[in-house]
Amino acid sequence: TINKARLWQSLMDMAKIGATDKGGCCRLALTDLDKQARDLYIQWAKEAGCDIKIDQVGNIRATRPGTDSTLPPVGTGSHLDTQPTGGKFDGVFGVLAGLEVIRSLNDHQIKTRHPIEISVWTNEEGSRFAPAMMGSGVVSGRFTLEEILNKTDVNGVRLGDELERIGYAGAEPVTGRAYKAFFETHIEQGPYLEAEGKMIGVVTGGQGQRWYDVELTGQESHAGTTPMHLRTDALTCASSLILAVQSIATANKPGCGTVGYMQVLPNSRNTIPGKITMSIDLRHPEDRALTVMDEALKAKIEALEAETGVKIALTPIWYYAPIPFDPDCIDAVREAAKALDYSHMDIIAGAGHDACYVSDFAPTSMVFTPCLNGISHNEIESTTAEECEAGCAVLFNAMLTLAQI
Amino acid sequence: TINKARLWQSLMDMAKIGATDKGGCCRLALTDLDKQARDLYIQWAKEAGCDIKIDQVGNIRATRPGTDSTLPPVGTGSHLDTQPTGGKFDGVFGVLAGLEVIRSLNDHQIKTRHPIEISVWTNEEGSRFAPAMMGSGVVSGRFTLEEILNKTDVNGVRLGDELERIGYAGAEPVTGRAYKAFFETHIEQGPYLEAEGKMIGVVTGGQGQRWYDVELTGQESHAGTTPMHLRTDALTCASSLILAVQSIATANKPGCGTVGYMQVLPNSRNTIPGKITMSIDLRHPEDRALTVMDEALKAKIEALEAETGVKIALTPIWYYAPIPFDPDCIDAVREAAKALDYSHMDIIAGAGHDACYVSDFAPTSMVFTPCLNGISHNEIESTTAEECEAGCAVLFNAMLTLAQI
Ligand SMILES: NC(=O)NCCC(=O)O
Ligand SMILES: NC(=O)NCCC(=O)O
Repeated sequence: TINKARLWQSLMDMAKIGATDKGGCCRLALTDLDKQARDLYIQWAKEAGCDIKIDQVGNIRATRPGTDSTLPPVGTGSHLDTQPTGGKFDGVFGVLAGLEVIRSLNDHQIKTRHPIEISVWTNEEGSRFAPAMMGSGVVSGRFTLEEILNKTDVNGVRLGDELERIGYAGAEPVTGRAYKAFFETHIEQGPYLEAEGKMIGVVTGGQGQRWYDVELTGQESHAGTTPMHLRTDALTCASSLILAVQSIATANKPGCGTVGYMQVLPNSRNTIPGKITMSIDLRHPEDRALTVMDEALKAKIEALEAETGVKIALTPIWYYAPIPFDPDCIDAVREAAKALDYSHMDIIAGAGHDACYVSDFAPTSMVFTPCLNGISHNEIESTTAEECEAGCAVLFNAMLTLAQI
Repeated sequence: TINKARLWQSLMDMAKIGATDKGGCCRLALTDLDKQARDLYIQWAKEAGCDIKIDQVGNIRATRPGTDSTLPPVGTGSHLDTQPTGGKFDGVFGVLAGLEVIRSLNDHQIKTRHPIEISVWTNEEGSRFAPAMMGSGVVSGRFTLEEILNKTDVNGVRLGDELERIGYAGAEPVTGRAYKAFFETHIEQGPYLEAEGKMIGVVTGGQGQRWYDVELTGQESHAGTTPMHLRTDALTCASSLILAVQSIATANKPGCGTVGYMQVLPNSRNTIPGKITMSIDLRHPEDRALTVMDEALKAKIEALEAETGVKIALTPIWYYAPIPFDPDCIDAVREAAKALDYSHMDIIAGAGHDACYVSDFAPTSMVFTPCLNGISHNEIESTTAEECEAGCAVLFNAMLTLAQI
């Protein structure tokens, strides 16, 4: 049904934008490279006959009309932004699988009752601007447009200004979206499909997340003259906290706990660090367990403050409870995998995805495909043309089923 | 003998160059601000009748002639560069105390047999360019001129190029220096004088130091999809190492161990860090104990590699054994403190000082004065005009004694 070689070629062409030495991509949200990727995608979508709309938070909608213009579209899509040292497939695969569905419908001159719509969501990664899934989050109402436009990166650059600068501050309202159903195709980004030898993950939901900003304030002092017992070292305290995050996650299986971002001040070899800013990311598929992790973190911080004299300011910046996907959409993905004779298993998404927020206002599920050694958020992220074909074919089948009802 | 108000005023005038919001100074070595400080100092030294020479590594020598031009000078001096969030006194006090000695000799029309010479040594702090005490280290022969000119800062800027750029790549050879004696005045930068209620520290030597660069290589991976037991997290491993540095120092009293500098890559909230670069600074007044600390560090690194799978590359970048100062110079400082009726105690320098390297080729000692709460390498570093007067008066007395012999 779909054209494996064309899908793969599009993935490789898109990967040239922001390509890194090690075979990955660096295409941070709303940079010039993100703009280049968006421009190329829009050109392709127009060539496939789609109508293009850009909304106030920069989400791009490409629509292939259905035979009944009063019906809501069947949607798909993902994101084109990447991590600073990201791969070629995270997000991009979901967008270009959607485009391949439309190209294949064109090839076979298939008319659908419902329109087919692909979304490119703004800043899914949450790396340059935190938190993640901003474009879908604004459309779902999880975030206000205003708060998102006012987010800043580490250099203080405003998201709204960057949208204007790259020409993607659109006119379409972010409210009033509706889908018949929404499916997002994505590499799993984890090890389970590969470990179980399955081609397709039928995604039944996404785990919950809690993100925090942390600021630790100690006292700068001389590394050679300040006796060990008189120090208020923000970095040794931060180290204890980082190890506690690891322990808290390990004690709450299958939870995850990560410190990915950290700045040390004044960052001078012979000065005891006086200030640390860092991130904490906690995840769990069960909300109760995520609460236990949050409470354990707060208790640890209280103990560390008492023990070290370092002041620790913990600011929760993001929370969402685990997301259950729609049973009918889950079934549609499973039935498609069966119909196409792909090995498959149910799976919960460990990453956040735009589909998680779309599921607030539309019946939603996702299609996962394996990636080599479960590695993502890494330039060596790898998957095969066959795996991409499988995910795209399942997407095609599930969307077509829903679009004809 | 010396002019307290003039010394204080000079300290306050110099502190305007690179002044920070919190009352400190940011005047990193060989920046435009370092050049401004050097220019102002040279203007003052010329006004005091000194002859100025600049050597190939940017050290500035200001000389007041003696009555016997065949005799080697009695020297003093320190540095004008600061930490990124440094104080107004660290280094600057030693330079301007030297200038005040010459101004006071002029006031009292005292002729000395030996010339009096003040040195401003290049990059004493070791913060922008590691290691520390580079200017004095080149003159002592601890470093070659070539290796120092080729040092780079974190942005890859070459020290030699910066010297040229600010106009301080002088013509004077770095070799062939000799002193009758050398004394450096400095704030203690630690808590002992204050704790003991003494005005003057008679410095009998400096503790030994070992500096290292460390690179930890794990594997970047997704923070939400990579199970805790499948991670190779460079930051959790670095945290264990930082806590080990603290433990090693605490177990080897009165040793110090500090990680002051750290960079996390890719530094993205939802990516497990794949690469960390950091510094380690170990110190001890006894060389044997410093060796024990070095061995404990290497053993810990081996254990951590085995335990975590993170690769750890430890590169020693600096080592010097504890430095004993010259008994006669130590006596001269003690006798000066006694003669001027200042309370005093013997003390070992916890910080590295240019005097440590000068002592390779000249009889040397130092004069310490208290600083508030023992805090240095901090914008709130504080001392009083009376304490500066005391240190400068002891310097004047000791130098004058030696300069007349
Ligand atoms: N898919 C993906 O990597 N999303 C980024 C947001 C997250 O960290 O879960
Ligand atoms: N005096 C001083 O702070 N020197 C810097 C070199 C060191 O860290 O000891």
